[in-house]
Amino acid sequence: MVTIYEDERVDYLLAEQDMSIIQSPNVFAFSLDAVLLARFAYVPIKKGAILDLCTGNGAVPLLLSRRTYASITGIEIQERLADMAKRSIQLNSLEEQLTIMHGDLKDMKDSMGHSAFDVVTCNPPYFPTEAKAERNQNDYLTIARHEVYSTLEDVVKASKLHVRPGGKVAMVHRPGRLVDIITLFRQYKIEPKRLQLVYPKRGRDANMLLIEGIRDGKADLTMLPPLYIYNEDDTYTTEAEAIIYGKP
Amino acid sequence: MVTIYEDERVDYLLAEQDMSIIQSPNVFAFSLDAVLLARFAYVPIKKGAILDLCTGNGAVPLLLSRRTYASITGIEIQERLADMAKRSIQLNSLEEQLTIMHGDLKDMKDSMGHSAFDVVTCNPPYFPTEAKAERNQNDYLTIARHEVYSTLEDVVKASKLHVRPGGKVAMVHRPGRLVDIITLFRQYKIEPKRLQLVYPKRGRDANMLLIEGIRDGKADLTMLPPLYIYNEDDTYTTEAEAIIYGKP
Repeated sequence: MVTIYEDERVDYLLAEQDMSIIQSPNVFAFSLDAVLLARFAYVPIKKGAILDLCTGNGAVPLLLSRRTYASITGIEIQERLADMAKRSIQLNSLEEQLTIMHGDLKDMKDSMGHSAFDVVTCNPPYFPTEAKAERNQNDYLTIARHEVYSTLEDVVKASKLHVRPGGKVAMVHRPGRLVDIITLFRQYKIEPKRLQLVYPKRGRDANMLLIEGIRDGKADLTMLPPLYIYNEDDTYTTEAEAIIYGKP
Repeated sequence: MVTIYEDERVDYLLAEQDMSIIQSPNVFAFSLDAVLLARFAYVPIKKGAILDLCTGNGAVPLLLSRRTYASITGIEIQERLADMAKRSIQLNSLEEQLTIMHGDLKDMKDSMGHSAFDVVTCNPPYFPTEAKAERNQNDYLTIARHEVYSTLEDVVKASKLHVRPGGKVAMVHRPGRLVDIITLFRQYKIEPKRLQLVYPKRGRDANMLLIEGIRDGKADLTMLPPLYIYNEDDTYTTEAEAIIYGKP
């Protein structure tokens, strides 16, 4: 029996597959970014260990579980969100494969060890926080979206700490931060290897990026074909539809 | 009267406009990369000063002259190529606007001053040189394509030296070097601001990138819509055709 609180609802995570997620418009709802990250990231198929930082309500671990038998651990700093993620795992009967830990990614070395994961994924807060302006706004959504508790550097540093040499780190972020991401990846010895830009429509600037690096990898970046989300008439493109609805 | 040597020919630089260029299959011929750079780079329209590093046979200065009244200076380390560029300028009667200097971009501070240019463009050698393997191959094409005389860092360093604060640096390169370019741009205080990926066809990985940074600029990168060169049937796309043939 899984409890669903009054301000929560159970949504389909992938409409065409039997996968649900607990979310709340007031607290946190997964976004397309998580869906794209979970499909972009390399995952070992048969075994291994995956870590998802800034896991929120657990969308990325839930989605990844459809692509791999590896164990997946999610870390979330907001207790309420971590609790939602735990209950979604129960709802989908995935307790054997998925674990959610409530904690601060800057401080998980003792509980998680280092270099223990084959893959680290992260859909981090996107927006730098102007400390003063945000001081009174540390509600659920602000924390999830702004670098209140974790800066981009914290995330990259934690990724480096927990991924094994030769392991992969995948991230979704905004194009405006690519230069910061690439600089920090290099600084923490995660060599960027694959980059995909996501465009809302043809002819527009990109509004999302997917990047994957390899710890201690050799320099050589591949730029994948772009992904377009909407057609001119605002319907999903065939490719986006397949990803969003979880079509095989 | 412009001399054309036996192994040279006069080609159209832009088929739809009256612009010619001297080149030679044995020595150097301009490529699509130069055409794309000359159309991608920001240029001041009415006045100003533009510097083109690694100018080769002068394709970028010649093309840029159709977009601006600014003075344009090209630097080329290979005397034979610099001479071709000078003769192409005469051929197009552009001596008042365009100047070619034969010299090493690492050593132009005395003749060019520093921070003297509004814009620096560069289509540099793409391939790192394995010193030993390339030692006996330093012919014209090897020098133009490999980092024999100028490394990527030399080029970025020279760009920083010659562009004014707030001025722009535009470069064409291979996707595999994006991480190096971004890292070096940041190191030399040229903040990447615009990035465009060029794809040979839909569904393929990118094979070229165009990047522009601003000296001492604020961090914020825009990723432009991708540029596709060929349609499925190997004809040029409408967009590529317009650029390549110089259609307005």
